[in-house]
Amino acid sequence: MTDLTYGQFEMVHNVLNLTIAIFGGSAFLFSMLQNQVAPSYRFAVNLMAVVVAMAAYHYVRIYEAWNAAYVFTDGAYKSTGLPFDYALRYADWLSTVPFIVASLVLVLDLGRAKSTNMTIRMVVSSMLMLLFGYFGEVQRTDMMLRGLWLIFSMIPFAYMIYVLWVEMSNLLEFETARIRQYFSALRVLLVTSWTFYPIVYCLPMLGLKSAELELGIQIGNSVADILAKAMFGLLIYSIAREKTVEDSLSKQVSGATPARVQA
Amino acid sequence: MTDLTYGQFEMVHNVLNLTIAIFGGSAFLFSMLQNQVAPSYRFAVNLMAVVVAMAAYHYVRIYEAWNAAYVFTDGAYKSTGLPFDYALRYADWLSTVPFIVASLVLVLDLGRAKSTNMTIRMVVSSMLMLLFGYFGEVQRTDMMLRGLWLIFSMIPFAYMIYVLWVEMSNLLEFETARIRQYFSALRVLLVTSWTFYPIVYCLPMLGLKSAELELGIQIGNSVADILAKAMFGLLIYSIAREKTVEDSLSKQVSGATPARVQA
Repeated sequence: MTDLTYGQFEMVHNVLNLTIAIFGGSAFLFSMLQNQVAPSYRFAVNLMAVVVAMAAYHYVRIYEAWNAAYVFTDGAYKSTGLPFDYALRYADWLSTVPFIVASLVLVLDLGRAKSTNMTIRMVVSSMLMLLFGYFGEVQRTDMMLRGLWLIFSMIPFAYMIYVLWVEMSNLLEFETARIRQYFSALRVLLVTSWTFYPIVYCLPMLGLKSAELELGIQIGNSVADILAKAMFGLLIYSIAREKTVEDSLSKQVSGATPARVQA
Repeated sequence: MTDLTYGQFEMVHNVLNLTIAIFGGSAFLFSMLQNQVAPSYRFAVNLMAVVVAMAAYHYVRIYEAWNAAYVFTDGAYKSTGLPFDYALRYADWLSTVPFIVASLVLVLDLGRAKSTNMTIRMVVSSMLMLLFGYFGEVQRTDMMLRGLWLIFSMIPFAYMIYVLWVEMSNLLEFETARIRQYFSALRVLLVTSWTFYPIVYCLPMLGLKSAELELGIQIGNSVADILAKAMFGLLIYSIAREKTVEDSLSKQVSGATPARVQA
């Protein structure tokens, strides 16, 4: 690990700390918001509450690992010799990304058979992407092998993009304009925040290493995680809430049952 | 303890960490999901929430024990001399397995008398199985005695398999095909994940010991525990949810009470 100035170390230290607070807070928020959505959409919101709760836990461990990698000596932060364990982040992704993609499918409420089938395909693809990424991540010397695992990892990623843009777009034609807007925002958010990870993955292959780069990686990862989990969860809730209101209005119009506010 | 490379130590370290997150996340999830099932099935879901919460706690201790068994010196992880306390896992099993088997019986809602009777038999059998296993586990030198305790432990295990496959199958004939499917998945999951434990138990009897084996044991145990607790809990919830929906539909058809969405 490269030595850091006091300011550099503290910057990462504080961003990691802030991230723990945002994830913990989001878990609390989503668990309260579940009551604002109809039972059919509730499981998706519950899953996102779990995602941010697990992310909060993992960030506590990442924060501990960051503190263990440096020691304050002579006015600066020197490496303790123990490398910062980047693979900790894979433990986070492996336990949260499958739930993120599942919640994206489930909130659309496509009917049991279609929903189950698509959820399984998305969950399996996301796990393969992460596993291949992990096998490459632990390759610290053989850069050819690291590059090869990246290519493997990109195959399930490309498949997920296909499902999101082609398959799901067809299923959404009967949804209202607002739902389609939310959904577009959701998938753009997911894919743009996810592109940050392969960029960081490639840095060792380019031989880049400096204190500034280390800062960029840690802060960039936190921002990408906040967008892909907390912000994403808020959008999932917005869709669930919108659909709850729409369902209740359509019942009112057809005169079947009086609209009952799900609360 | 055998010395480990940085990568080997970190792999177990991360898997244990991931397991803590999954169990903690599942406890949170199951406690939210309880509202989606009717009161008659809620206790089973509550028990599973408690099981994964206790497992999360035990895994924190297992994680600490793993970290205490090794020290990072000269770029590798050397044994500190303190053995990793494998019996910690028995503390986990003794406090969770009786609840797991109880929740399996309770979610079927067999009526009070039948339910209580079967729950007691399953709980007692599971505790005997674990106690005998523990007595054998602490035998590190006398391999004859270790083998004898294994045989004792297999008797209540075989009895539980009898109850699951013979007694319970007879009770399930009036259930819908979907419930029977879930139940089959449940018992197959339970028994296959449980077979991992006696295999690990036998390794010292075969005189096997290596860094790779240690990795296999720790990672295999985590995976078996995740399947037997978190995955099992999700199936218990699925049965409870399915039965809730079925009950509500049958009430609607018979016209007794209007269907009330349990939420």
